[in-house]
Amino acid sequence: MTLRIVQAQLNFRVGDIAYNLQKHRDAIKKALELKADAILFSELSLTGYPPEDLLLRPEFIKETQHSLEELAKETPDIYCIVGHPLLIESWLYNACSVLLNGKIITQYQKQCLPNYGVFDEARYFSPGKSTCLFSLRDIPTSIIICEDLWKLEPSEKAKHKGAKLLLVPNASPFEINKHEKRFEIITKRAKKHKFSIIYVNQITGQDELVFDGGSMVVNAKGELCHLAKHCEEELSVIDIDVNGNISAQKTITPPQTLTRIYNVLTLGLRDYVQKNHFKSVIIGVSGGIDSALTLALAVDALGKENVYALVMPSRYTASISLEDAEILIKNLDVKSETLSIEPTYQAMLETLKTSFAHTKSDVTEENIQARIRGMLLMSLSNKFGSLVLTTGNRSEIAVGYCTLYGDMVGGYAVLKNIPKTLVYALSHYRNQISSVIPERILTRAPTAELAPNQTDQDVLPPYDILDAILEAYINQSKSSQEIIDKGFDAATVNRVIKMIKGSEYKRKQSAIGPHVDNKSFIKDWRYPVTNGYKG
Amino acid sequence: MTLRIVQAQLNFRVGDIAYNLQKHRDAIKKALELKADAILFSELSLTGYPPEDLLLRPEFIKETQHSLEELAKETPDIYCIVGHPLLIESWLYNACSVLLNGKIITQYQKQCLPNYGVFDEARYFSPGKSTCLFSLRDIPTSIIICEDLWKLEPSEKAKHKGAKLLLVPNASPFEINKHEKRFEIITKRAKKHKFSIIYVNQITGQDELVFDGGSMVVNAKGELCHLAKHCEEELSVIDIDVNGNISAQKTITPPQTLTRIYNVLTLGLRDYVQKNHFKSVIIGVSGGIDSALTLALAVDALGKENVYALVMPSRYTASISLEDAEILIKNLDVKSETLSIEPTYQAMLETLKTSFAHTKSDVTEENIQARIRGMLLMSLSNKFGSLVLTTGNRSEIAVGYCTLYGDMVGGYAVLKNIPKTLVYALSHYRNQISSVIPERILTRAPTAELAPNQTDQDVLPPYDILDAILEAYINQSKSSQEIIDKGFDAATVNRVIKMIKGSEYKRKQSAIGPHVDNKSFIKDWRYPVTNGYKG
Repeated sequence: MTLRIVQAQLNFRVGDIAYNLQKHRDAIKKALELKADAILFSELSLTGYPPEDLLLRPEFIKETQHSLEELAKETPDIYCIVGHPLLIESWLYNACSVLLNGKIITQYQKQCLPNYGVFDEARYFSPGKSTCLFSLRDIPTSIIICEDLWKLEPSEKAKHKGAKLLLVPNASPFEINKHEKRFEIITKRAKKHKFSIIYVNQITGQDELVFDGGSMVVNAKGELCHLAKHCEEELSVIDIDVNGNISAQKTITPPQTLTRIYNVLTLGLRDYVQKNHFKSVIIGVSGGIDSALTLALAVDALGKENVYALVMPSRYTASISLEDAEILIKNLDVKSETLSIEPTYQAMLETLKTSFAHTKSDVTEENIQARIRGMLLMSLSNKFGSLVLTTGNRSEIAVGYCTLYGDMVGGYAVLKNIPKTLVYALSHYRNQISSVIPERILTRAPTAELAPNQTDQDVLPPYDILDAILEAYINQSKSSQEIIDKGFDAATVNRVIKMIKGSEYKRKQSAIGPHVDNKSFIKDWRYPVTNGYKG
Repeated sequence: MTLRIVQAQLNFRVGDIAYNLQKHRDAIKKALELKADAILFSELSLTGYPPEDLLLRPEFIKETQHSLEELAKETPDIYCIVGHPLLIESWLYNACSVLLNGKIITQYQKQCLPNYGVFDEARYFSPGKSTCLFSLRDIPTSIIICEDLWKLEPSEKAKHKGAKLLLVPNASPFEINKHEKRFEIITKRAKKHKFSIIYVNQITGQDELVFDGGSMVVNAKGELCHLAKHCEEELSVIDIDVNGNISAQKTITPPQTLTRIYNVLTLGLRDYVQKNHFKSVIIGVSGGIDSALTLALAVDALGKENVYALVMPSRYTASISLEDAEILIKNLDVKSETLSIEPTYQAMLETLKTSFAHTKSDVTEENIQARIRGMLLMSLSNKFGSLVLTTGNRSEIAVGYCTLYGDMVGGYAVLKNIPKTLVYALSHYRNQISSVIPERILTRAPTAELAPNQTDQDVLPPYDILDAILEAYINQSKSSQEIIDKGFDAATVNRVIKMIKGSEYKRKQSAIGPHVDNKSFIKDWRYPVTNGYKG
């Protein structure tokens, strides 16, 4: 006899219990049609992940419990492994239940609660202490949840209890090289304990987090038996023999890094827009690379008919910027409009004339231009209901080379955690699929065009150097001395670090953007604004 | 023989280890002059509290460790109890050390780590397991840190080990009625275990948190022996007899609630401004109550010479608004300037004329006015270096009755967690000290003046009803049905809840403001923007 399990890699909605419940029902129905014995959903599948402070609302927990009971009652002869918060007395657990024939036959409570990086599970949950073992048809099966797999103890206890198959529901957000890390830990556990592991992840964009799927099955020899799609829903069918063995597959290759990042940005953007009930987005297009890539991503995520480009020239806008913006807009075939910021800029300067008498032109006037652009974007957004996408990249936001309430205006910042050097790489990647970003945008020196003959490098070190310093200081928590010891110029390093610390207040008011690597702004970067640290 | 302890209620600076080290030295010097045997500093006194992700930087931990060793070496014959992070192997603890005669004689590691509300200690620290007992001269003394006191076990273990005196360094942020809760738990523990407790808190404004001091001494009978000042530094001298007893004082009364809140807002504002190296602030004054109270608070916090008022009338500004603003500015004797938003507003409408053809005037035009005001404030701030204070209150921010990048512009939001009804109470309170806010501002119907004959109540329920619903939904996590069952109109309740959920994106981009009660925005309110919850 063979056992058939459906691995349900789905896109749930945080907080929308009724929607998620129906999604479970639909998947169970399909699993039955596929003659499956079991279906495995991802972590907290009934509430979506992460529900954050919704978990502190008693009514939310009650409604989830009620939906779980409803689903259990309906469940026919198929093992359904469903994720949900579980309240026992006054303790809340990150749990899952095994439903079968109208009943909850067993429950498991997550033992290891991540409370680092983007995770705050200790804020909400108590750690479970027990191992779960049940017979899935005839196979002794155990469940552990996500972080449990990364520690040795939970899978070891499952093995000791006699498990021949390990099911692992996850909500594992994308990071660069995360697939490799997941694969390594899964194979390590499978080989050590000599059981097959079915690892299921959700695919979802949820505010700052993007869950990229890539659900896996690894057999007791540590061989990859299945790799689900990246950033797409999938119900995978897994057949297991009486001893819990699964056949390996030979030709599985995960997508390349740039493909993964591009997929993740697309999914994150699409889900943010659609789950927040927007139909379209509006983007300020400058003729520079950040807005070009953002526009391309938006078209790929939402369709060209849902993307609107706004060009907002000033006295400092070079004609080549306007030409490149025009070519880009034509290539991507999106609607667009051009509104000059000059009349409003003139009116502002006139209003401030007396106040600014005897002062020199400085960053103030640059910011006013950026803020008028922000105001125009928001005006069209308010009037016609498109979400403003802000186009700033991680390098700029890290050093504060951006205007609060100006170019930082918007509901979602697609490139927020993409360093400028990676913006270039992703743009080249996108152009390989079809050439949409004009060549000159890729080769021209970056400029904010807020003053005559300005380039970014008037203020910033070259981006390859800047990004290397940022990576060392932010992602690797290196000290200034350690970075200087790597061979970077001391004055440059200290200036960059000062800029990082001096712009914390801007990041605190910045738009949400997708986490793509460790130390993303803001969930994984919780620095004080008021910060006297000299290092 | 009598033992003399100095309770050091001081204002430390997060991250500024050198400053904090010097502050310890100065206090120790004064304690020696006072012939003290010991000096007790607050929790994490060497780093300031909370250092947040600075704790994840290895160099920061090393520098703290180095400063601790330096301080220990210098310490003469006085017990100095100093708070600091402590790295043991790869585990970080929230610890304190007892320094004496050039050495660290003992260390204690906090056992209970708060990870709820505004606290994230499980993100950084491992829990300690051991009880600390040492002889302070001849008195067996134990130390526990902050949260340890709120759980029974740590103080019980200290008692079992033979402690006759309990020292408790704290970093306890202000909340309404927090003093009463602290006093209750201290007396409860003191009476139960029959030892004296010296409880020391810092006074500090640190981003969203304000630590209000109110350090206490309670003897073994549970009597209050000393209550340190509210929101002011103090080195208190505590004399203890050979048995660990301390004499009660009879005439200690803590300040009233409104006084406390006013003190906390003043301290929070002053510290935010000064620790971030600003000399002055600029405030948009409308003739309404929020900006009036903010202006008064700013003058009380920073001195009238450091406060600048900007009046920004439009076609919708009533003459009485301008009159009241003028009287207020005169009463508070601050510099001011008037800049009309009309020319810029005209220019914006002209720029958008074609785009907005065949559309009706709506909230878009209102937002443009608010955003021009924001832009003018930021322009003066950028040019002259004053920090913009934003004036919105909690009721508005909760329901999103405010303009992102408009009236929400600013670095610090003094009234962010003050409901509108409390804004009135605080304004009356301030006027009792000296009458600065014109009577008509206190009695007139609130209006945003962004459209003809507008009042807040065109869109919002009366503020007493709104604030009661917000308190129930936000602070008490009640469901809509529970709130309706209290007697509120169902349609109103549902509309308010919808507004709360629909404005999460605004709060995510809002300025920092002081936490004054539970569920303050944002540290204690971590809700998803993308939120499908129907409740």
